[in-house]
Amino acid sequence: MVHIDPFDVSDEAIDYSKLIKEFGTQPISSIGNLPNIKHFRRGFVFSHRDFDVFLNAIKKGDKTSIITGINASGSLHFGHKWTMDLVIALQREFNLPVLLTISDDEAYVTGKVKSQEEALENSKLIAAQLLALGFNPNKTKILVHQKYTKIYNLAIKLSPRCTMNEIKAIYGFDMSRNPGQWFYPIIQAADILLPQELEGKHHVLVPIAIDQDPHLRLARDIAERAGYIKPATIHMKFLRGLKGGSKMSKSKPGSAIFLDEDPKKAVKLCMQALTGGQPTAEEQRRLGGDPDKSVVIEYLGAHFIDDDNEFKKLVDDYRSGKILDGETKQLLARHVESFLASFQPKVEEYKKDIDSYLMVD
Amino acid sequence: MVHIDPFDVSDEAIDYSKLIKEFGTQPISSIGNLPNIKHFRRGFVFSHRDFDVFLNAIKKGDKTSIITGINASGSLHFGHKWTMDLVIALQREFNLPVLLTISDDEAYVTGKVKSQEEALENSKLIAAQLLALGFNPNKTKILVHQKYTKIYNLAIKLSPRCTMNEIKAIYGFDMSRNPGQWFYPIIQAADILLPQELEGKHHVLVPIAIDQDPHLRLARDIAERAGYIKPATIHMKFLRGLKGGSKMSKSKPGSAIFLDEDPKKAVKLCMQALTGGQPTAEEQRRLGGDPDKSVVIEYLGAHFIDDDNEFKKLVDDYRSGKILDGETKQLLARHVESFLASFQPKVEEYKKDIDSYLMVD
Repeated sequence: MVHIDPFDVSDEAIDYSKLIKEFGTQPISSIGNLPNIKHFRRGFVFSHRDFDVFLNAIKKGDKTSIITGINASGSLHFGHKWTMDLVIALQREFNLPVLLTISDDEAYVTGKVKSQEEALENSKLIAAQLLALGFNPNKTKILVHQKYTKIYNLAIKLSPRCTMNEIKAIYGFDMSRNPGQWFYPIIQAADILLPQELEGKHHVLVPIAIDQDPHLRLARDIAERAGYIKPATIHMKFLRGLKGGSKMSKSKPGSAIFLDEDPKKAVKLCMQALTGGQPTAEEQRRLGGDPDKSVVIEYLGAHFIDDDNEFKKLVDDYRSGKILDGETKQLLARHVESFLASFQPKVEEYKKDIDSYLMVD
Repeated sequence: MVHIDPFDVSDEAIDYSKLIKEFGTQPISSIGNLPNIKHFRRGFVFSHRDFDVFLNAIKKGDKTSIITGINASGSLHFGHKWTMDLVIALQREFNLPVLLTISDDEAYVTGKVKSQEEALENSKLIAAQLLALGFNPNKTKILVHQKYTKIYNLAIKLSPRCTMNEIKAIYGFDMSRNPGQWFYPIIQAADILLPQELEGKHHVLVPIAIDQDPHLRLARDIAERAGYIKPATIHMKFLRGLKGGSKMSKSKPGSAIFLDEDPKKAVKLCMQALTGGQPTAEEQRRLGGDPDKSVVIEYLGAHFIDDDNEFKKLVDDYRSGKILDGETKQLLARHVESFLASFQPKVEEYKKDIDSYLMVD
């Protein structure tokens, strides 16, 4: 069985429609008028809670904002980029303030990094990468827990609104874990409710990958009890790993292309990606490839081919055997190389005075 | 059976020598050369861990400091004053830096105050009262968790050095408590280890009432695992409540004289205190009183009569029937009234810019 929680996702193909039932969420198709953003058009966003309410609030001109978070275990990879591209697109489409929280504390208490110093270094790299991806620096706040420890005060404020039994029921922790791990969900809830705490009650959207949904459930329950508006959420599918599997992930060796990867090495990784092709070129020309199986096609569609017709043509040509694996890999490799070559200097530029972009106590 | 933990002390007479066995500590009498401070001379300090090591470090001229903490549930009372008088005496005797931590977060998560704002107000009052009691402002740091949220970072740093099972074993919490309560012990450990974190490994003394010993056990265990010197501790008996019982306590109605009490009302409280006298003045003159039973005598000795011979004379005269309850009460009332009348304006003075005395992030 596929296992999905905030700390572990098993490496099998995921049936997302089944997840909607399991998690008790709404299919995104229940909303008629979705934003004209690639991630929605191509079915990457598959589920939601109260996204209709959030869109209505925007339409009515009510105060709205976005908050989403990233773990500080290391450099972002293309899986993160794909989800952050959606948040950036939403920010642009609706001119929304965005709060990005980087959980360096969680990275440390779960053992993903060895020290708080390492977690802080990672956080600064990630913050620079997020800005370089295209967040509007004037409408975006970046919060690193170690630098904005005031978040502890909000977590404490919210704490009497839930019990350890609830945390146990949602996360299934056992008592051999450390107190920081058990406390982290309430810090995460504080992150999610911080925009309303700082700027008054308003409609907040939390775009997340589906594995983070337990955090949302707790935050929504606490929100109701503490007098905030329940935050809305949209659930994103995972970008698959280089060799296939459920998701691109730092914890699955060989599955990720990191945004700080040397561009030449990234090219080599692209050439090793899973395809949907046949054993020989001759067979592929004759029988065609399976575009749904090809991670190469998936990455091209997600990151580089924005025009839907152009992407459809690529998929059709691949299915018919007109385009072979080698060509798709070359195409992906060129895109990845050129993206990283122009992205990485931007990151270096932001890193120079990254502290000025971080929220301070 | 007497029940003693950091959150509850049952209201019966306490057999302190039994506690030494139960808690696995050392009797203070095992140390030959105790400081010449009233609290030691009169048997108020009854037990310790590594106090001999701490005194040796002072003798050798090694770096040493004191840290102790107070809950922010409300104004200090004479029970707190008696323990703080000891810390002040130690600071003076050995010219020691002192860190005073005020746990406004604990007061809130345990429901002792209704809001963080109330906890912060209390903290500022307490900080001003501590300074007015006589701590040296140049050698004393005051830390309020809500104002110095960086303490969260140290708690997170220490967190992987213990498990929830250990917290459960030490505190006996159940899962209906909130996450802030379960996390608080690690914040408390962070308080205790902060002096070494900020200023390098050194010998730290933590003077506490015996009910706080569980916090020390956890902090000492974590200290060892995290590479700090295990903090030493001395255990203080409780000052009894006005009507007798185990301790003067805010949570035991009618047991306390608060330091912010109206002096005239405090006089009335003194007149209602438990004595060791006889039903009539005639009988008391004939049979004498029981000085050990008299809370009035206890308070006079603790707070106002520093000279041991003078105090011995009072006790003897009381036992022999030479001094009656009415006289001891009058004596106590005059002392309390005059103390409060000169103390409270000092508190107001410190309150004016109390923020400048608090540690900031």
